[in-house]
Amino acid sequence: MEGPELWRELGQQLRVDSIRAVAVTKSGHPTSSMSAADLMAVLLAKYLRYDFDEPHNPANDHLIFSKGHASPLLYSIYKAAGAITDEELLTFRVFGSRLQGHPTPAIPWVDVATGSLGQGLPFSVGVALAGKKLDQIPYRIWCLCGDSEMAEGSMWEAFEHAAFYGLDNLTAIIDVNKFGQRGETMHGWDLDSYANRAKAFGWHTIEIDGHDVEAIDEAFGEAAAQQGQPTVIVAHTLKGKGVKEVEDKPGWHGKALDHPEEAIAELGGERNIVIDVPKPEAAEPHRFEAGGGELPTWDLGEEVATRRAYGDALAALGSIRGDVVALDGEVSNSTYAEIFRDAHPDRYFEMYIAEQQLVAAAVGLQVRSWVPFASTFAAFMSRAYDFIRMAAISQADIRLCGSHAGVSIGEDGPSQMALEDLAMLRAVHGSTVLYPCDANQTAKLVVEMADIEGISYLRTLRPATPVLYGPDEDFEIGASRTVREGDDVAMVRAGLTEHEALKAADALAQDGIEARVIDLYSIKPLDEETLRSLTCPIVTAEDHWPEGGLGEAVLSALGDADERPPVVRLAVHEMPHSGKPAELLAEAGIDADGIAAAARKLVRDQVSAS
Amino acid sequence: MEGPELWRELGQQLRVDSIRAVAVTKSGHPTSSMSAADLMAVLLAKYLRYDFDEPHNPANDHLIFSKGHASPLLYSIYKAAGAITDEELLTFRVFGSRLQGHPTPAIPWVDVATGSLGQGLPFSVGVALAGKKLDQIPYRIWCLCGDSEMAEGSMWEAFEHAAFYGLDNLTAIIDVNKFGQRGETMHGWDLDSYANRAKAFGWHTIEIDGHDVEAIDEAFGEAAAQQGQPTVIVAHTLKGKGVKEVEDKPGWHGKALDHPEEAIAELGGERNIVIDVPKPEAAEPHRFEAGGGELPTWDLGEEVATRRAYGDALAALGSIRGDVVALDGEVSNSTYAEIFRDAHPDRYFEMYIAEQQLVAAAVGLQVRSWVPFASTFAAFMSRAYDFIRMAAISQADIRLCGSHAGVSIGEDGPSQMALEDLAMLRAVHGSTVLYPCDANQTAKLVVEMADIEGISYLRTLRPATPVLYGPDEDFEIGASRTVREGDDVAMVRAGLTEHEALKAADALAQDGIEARVIDLYSIKPLDEETLRSLTCPIVTAEDHWPEGGLGEAVLSALGDADERPPVVRLAVHEMPHSGKPAELLAEAGIDADGIAAAARKLVRDQVSAS
Repeated sequence: MEGPELWRELGQQLRVDSIRAVAVTKSGHPTSSMSAADLMAVLLAKYLRYDFDEPHNPANDHLIFSKGHASPLLYSIYKAAGAITDEELLTFRVFGSRLQGHPTPAIPWVDVATGSLGQGLPFSVGVALAGKKLDQIPYRIWCLCGDSEMAEGSMWEAFEHAAFYGLDNLTAIIDVNKFGQRGETMHGWDLDSYANRAKAFGWHTIEIDGHDVEAIDEAFGEAAAQQGQPTVIVAHTLKGKGVKEVEDKPGWHGKALDHPEEAIAELGGERNIVIDVPKPEAAEPHRFEAGGGELPTWDLGEEVATRRAYGDALAALGSIRGDVVALDGEVSNSTYAEIFRDAHPDRYFEMYIAEQQLVAAAVGLQVRSWVPFASTFAAFMSRAYDFIRMAAISQADIRLCGSHAGVSIGEDGPSQMALEDLAMLRAVHGSTVLYPCDANQTAKLVVEMADIEGISYLRTLRPATPVLYGPDEDFEIGASRTVREGDDVAMVRAGLTEHEALKAADALAQDGIEARVIDLYSIKPLDEETLRSLTCPIVTAEDHWPEGGLGEAVLSALGDADERPPVVRLAVHEMPHSGKPAELLAEAGIDADGIAAAARKLVRDQVSAS
Repeated sequence: MEGPELWRELGQQLRVDSIRAVAVTKSGHPTSSMSAADLMAVLLAKYLRYDFDEPHNPANDHLIFSKGHASPLLYSIYKAAGAITDEELLTFRVFGSRLQGHPTPAIPWVDVATGSLGQGLPFSVGVALAGKKLDQIPYRIWCLCGDSEMAEGSMWEAFEHAAFYGLDNLTAIIDVNKFGQRGETMHGWDLDSYANRAKAFGWHTIEIDGHDVEAIDEAFGEAAAQQGQPTVIVAHTLKGKGVKEVEDKPGWHGKALDHPEEAIAELGGERNIVIDVPKPEAAEPHRFEAGGGELPTWDLGEEVATRRAYGDALAALGSIRGDVVALDGEVSNSTYAEIFRDAHPDRYFEMYIAEQQLVAAAVGLQVRSWVPFASTFAAFMSRAYDFIRMAAISQADIRLCGSHAGVSIGEDGPSQMALEDLAMLRAVHGSTVLYPCDANQTAKLVVEMADIEGISYLRTLRPATPVLYGPDEDFEIGASRTVREGDDVAMVRAGLTEHEALKAADALAQDGIEARVIDLYSIKPLDEETLRSLTCPIVTAEDHWPEGGLGEAVLSALGDADERPPVVRLAVHEMPHSGKPAELLAEAGIDADGIAAAARKLVRDQVSAS
């Protein structure tokens, strides 16, 4: 059996297997799988070039299900490719199975976790960028999209960037089955509505009947031959295609079929076609030469913004390591990612004001083992929170840098002040959250970030701050630094408030109060040992809302101890506004005066209580 | 002076005043203001209908600067409208001035805070929806957009929804000055690229020279006459127009002019034109009849999902109050917002899978005093975090409901499990975070949410849970409920873990351990008094990551006390996967067995330590 006959049979097999997989726990999305089965059958049988024995073969194509809920179809493809057994297919959604409700990289052939709609295509853009601009080898990215998810703005960020970067190695396939979860989509079967939008965004577009295997074949051929432009195949399909009980009927999203046995019979019964998926031609990815060089250093007392140190250090790191790449969301002259851009233009990607695509591209680049650093204002990382959350599920190693944190940015006002970034990034599984206070510390942490697994985040500052540490000091992730000894009160902080704390300690010394100052530059993981060893009262201060930041991190380290000193937490409590940085820090009570006053009161209270 | 001559002069005045305002603190965005000055001059002089003495006049037009950094232009408009004095204009960005770096509703004529790009247009869609579908009066929404922010996917969510809902009361004006912050935009002066995209999304489009006041006049006239479709005016402009030193030059974003006096002279000096902005014709907004009725109630022990109670209660509230409206992100059959939709179709808005627009529309609706409830899966609220953050700066009163929280959703897997929503929502200024455990409690909290100021959030559950509270109990925001007395250990939790805690307490009682169980349904504000009165060790449990959620909220209430009991916090520590809810709760150690074991150990440790 070959050609159209094979494709049709394979399509039926994928439907049958999707229904069977879902029947196991009676949970999953069979009808969303059935609509795209013919599209995927032709892809698997003729176009996909993939070495299932070597998922890390750099020449492999990438198959990304942006409509992650069609996981039964994806797993049925793996079975048809001989990659998993029928037995394993029937563990779908069972506790402990790697065949989860939505695809995750717990499966070796899955690049990125999907299931939050509108993300697979932006991730695909990242992988395609890697292929075109970094690896420079001709693998293709095939991305299956749902019609419902076209309502997500992130899809249009992806359309915009894919066209701008001329990603002709990327094909998006929109499975227009007309139904979302709760009913019809905005555009139903108006294929033109999708194609016209995509065309306006600069894509090559093809409209087809998604159940006509010859038309599908022709469309994939056309997409693969396309030069200079990405292609979108807009396919008219029927949700639940092939089974009368559910075909093109509303109310069947995410539901197991009531009568799977009858449905399987209607589809012609089980099949066991195995496709010998062709392996890609061997190809060696391009490597950028590392010219070597040294990290920048700064002299003690010099005034340098940590954001500037980030840019300098990242550019230097790019010279030392050829695998480091950088991306920025149209603020590279503020984050100082522009220093990297100017030093390594071939490894820099301008993502414009599209933070979702910024983070998604970083995730896509690391799929191909590049080491991405993505930067924007810390406040605007909040725009990409769902992508960061999903990146953790993707087991992605990405590095984020948020500049302009806190009220210390001054006149621009609250819209540009990140006051929730520490809370947001701490609450990401396996994340690392760093908040350096000076330039040398920043540079050292940037170097370490390149080797951190998972999501790491560096918070940098707009204003220049004095260099506190010599260039030879090292800063372990998960440690802290005691920068001043004292046993009357401990002041725990990081970043900007570090400097204010040191000034406060000087003032307190004049009152005879010996203040210990701890630099908690690694907010997650946290130096619990040092914190738990403290016996004097603690004052924390942070340029952040009181919730979820440094103060609560300190409390969390002490929480289950039987005896522990009181912790007074200073933070930003009222909505800030425009003003000079010093005015705003004073208003929030997190400048040296505020910190000293809190410490003084705490020490007095302790004395009067004892 | 009138007509084109007036408009040209007014445009120059707006430029001069923008330069003057920025010169005060040498901080702000004069060139971004100058490019749009002619557009805004014609709008102010001829099209805007606004009663500056009565900013809450329901018939007022709405002028929204999506490019919020052009605030000097906006404030110069206020001066030209006679709403503020020249003296006040010159307080721009000064500490304490309401004329902040980016517009906020600290100014009575500002509807929404902008400054995070790509948000003003989605907010405008919300206001336009209110005008068209709720108020049903003919005010217009004029939204000034930057070309750079067109890269934000949220703009295309707005384009999509505005066309879908036929919002012909909305005009977007794109100020295509070609430059972003760090350099050229993707599309430079290719006006067609914007117009073609907008046309494909269903908008009426007009391309003009944004400095030709006659063309601007014609375009606004055409926009105002447009029926059934929103209009976008794509305007070719020069950044820094009118001042040679900066006109159409890169490197001048967000910078005060070096020589403001010369620039002002070049623009023809200061002017003091005051426009008598016409007030709108009086109009009475439509009010929906409240038919009355009662809140639903459930019997003790009945098994009901709190998400279901949300839907039932919201529908009932919609009958009691005509100002309540609901929106949902294409999952209304899961969140149960569909119950409201079916009961009150005229006050329900389907926002499809576009969570940014979902939250932005809620913000826009409350601008016109409607009481919006917006729902989606709790996990996908993360998609709109930047909008929620900005909504707090907008002083918006919006109610969010996130369903399907935590591992208790089961088979769908981690992409659909919100495990960071409590952290995310706690770290929003002035927010209220509620997590009910049963149906009657949910219904009562839904009613209270309608009157809560600021951002309120309700976390609901997928699985059915037994009704614990009688229908007559009331639940104050900021309080807690002790559901079982005991002095050996206190178990503090909410939502799902509440039920597991009660089971755990039964098990502990058999071991002779008297466990107190506290239902902390109001996670923010928190019942600090009750928590601080506890003297026995505390176990918290939450279906959430360990960071920023219920456990840290409890620690924050106790943190500065001199003596406080140890707090052991149970939470989800490992990345979850698919499985049955009970299997996943057990694996995470937050089921009854896990809680009982932790409590038992804690009590034992206390005994052996004493």
